[in-house]
Amino acid sequence: MNTGKEVREACRSGRFRSQTSGLAKGFVQANLVILPQSWAWDFLLFAQRNPKPCPVLEVGEVGDPYTRFLAEGADIRTDLPKYRLYKEGKQVQEMDDLRSVWREDWVYFLIGCSFSFEQALLESGLEVRHISEGRNVPMYQTNIPCADAGRFKDCRVVVSMRPFSDSDQQKAIEITRKYPSVHGAPLFAGDPKKIGIENLNQPDWGEAVTIQEGETPLFWGCGVTPQLAAMIAKPPLMITHAPGHMFVGDKLNKDFEI
Amino acid sequence: MNTGKEVREACRSGRFRSQTSGLAKGFVQANLVILPQSWAWDFLLFAQRNPKPCPVLEVGEVGDPYTRFLAEGADIRTDLPKYRLYKEGKQVQEMDDLRSVWREDWVYFLIGCSFSFEQALLESGLEVRHISEGRNVPMYQTNIPCADAGRFKDCRVVVSMRPFSDSDQQKAIEITRKYPSVHGAPLFAGDPKKIGIENLNQPDWGEAVTIQEGETPLFWGCGVTPQLAAMIAKPPLMITHAPGHMFVGDKLNKDFEI
Repeated sequence: MNTGKEVREACRSGRFRSQTSGLAKGFVQANLVILPQSWAWDFLLFAQRNPKPCPVLEVGEVGDPYTRFLAEGADIRTDLPKYRLYKEGKQVQEMDDLRSVWREDWVYFLIGCSFSFEQALLESGLEVRHISEGRNVPMYQTNIPCADAGRFKDCRVVVSMRPFSDSDQQKAIEITRKYPSVHGAPLFAGDPKKIGIENLNQPDWGEAVTIQEGETPLFWGCGVTPQLAAMIAKPPLMITHAPGHMFVGDKLNKDFEI
Repeated sequence: MNTGKEVREACRSGRFRSQTSGLAKGFVQANLVILPQSWAWDFLLFAQRNPKPCPVLEVGEVGDPYTRFLAEGADIRTDLPKYRLYKEGKQVQEMDDLRSVWREDWVYFLIGCSFSFEQALLESGLEVRHISEGRNVPMYQTNIPCADAGRFKDCRVVVSMRPFSDSDQQKAIEITRKYPSVHGAPLFAGDPKKIGIENLNQPDWGEAVTIQEGETPLFWGCGVTPQLAAMIAKPPLMITHAPGHMFVGDKLNKDFEI
């Protein structure tokens, strides 16, 4: 599948239920969060106050499952390969299709994903370690507090980590800085203990990667943060994409370079 | 007055009721919009969908008049020099102080302002024409549609204009590009008719400036846009700063450079 539209059609028809990494190269991929209207204001405020871990790319009107910006007329209920349903912050179910459960008071949020800037890193000739090693990017909970927003509070920033040599580090920072709507420049570079990460070999999500002699770990805000915030706040109901099973749009990653 | 705090204290004590342009150099200034909670979701969504003309820097919790991000504990009801009250989209009154009218269902929005990037333009040695000529920046309604959001619809983008020579133009674009949270790079450069502006000498707001032989007009998204959107949508009540009478924060303009 070479375009976002092809991926979405394969999801919609039930032909595709797998992870989207590496598919439709160049097309933007996004995290999904669906919440009831009564929680939507607090969530959008949380995103506004925490733009690095939670860069909102598109928000639906209340009850409207169709997209207009990342793609024209994609159906958020059917066009992702797999969904997860949470009640009171606990995962209760995976689902392939939301049409039978969709409610008129639901609001969807599509949130930027680091896939977008990773393409730019690769194209500039940098090595992105977890990609070279065929793993999921390692993600860690930090001790960096998120700004509170209504019922979303006491959450800490989740980061993704990519190691770079001293000579590549500045280049990686400069490239990702140009993508403020998909996490932007790293939040932190250097000793992971300073942001509350004890052991890089034990990520909280994803898989550990090799860090070579002389390399520095760089940490970017991660789209798992808003999911974590929601698990802490325990809304009566929340739906997300299943990990790695992202929304794929018609916009290109390079459309998000400023 | 050399700091944001000094300006806010002078407003709070009633000693200062004038325009804030040129005061507290280096400190961020912001546009204010206050709306009832029932309109706040649509407005924040409008801003999310129109980030160039409507870059939101801070949003209060419902009923809370105090700031936490642009300044710690500024009181939005007293710390600006002058306010305007609108009912059903029509201006009904100017006010010096909102304490007697503040309601528990109000939400404030502070929106980025081009003062922030103008400082960077000046510091890089560029001439900013309306500043040289001692005028307000000229602003124009365009034919570029804003993205609709709930009841905020059928609005067109308002732009501010600054002319630059061919040799300075690229520099001005590159500098302002680094300030995505305060309008970012220009929306358009060149023939004003292409964006629906008939006569640069007749701005819709502000004052016309000289455009010299060989200069190109550059157009940036303008914070008047969300006010215009609100005047079209006609919420029962809206409060803004009086033109030029801005909120001055403790954050610095350079804090908004990415």
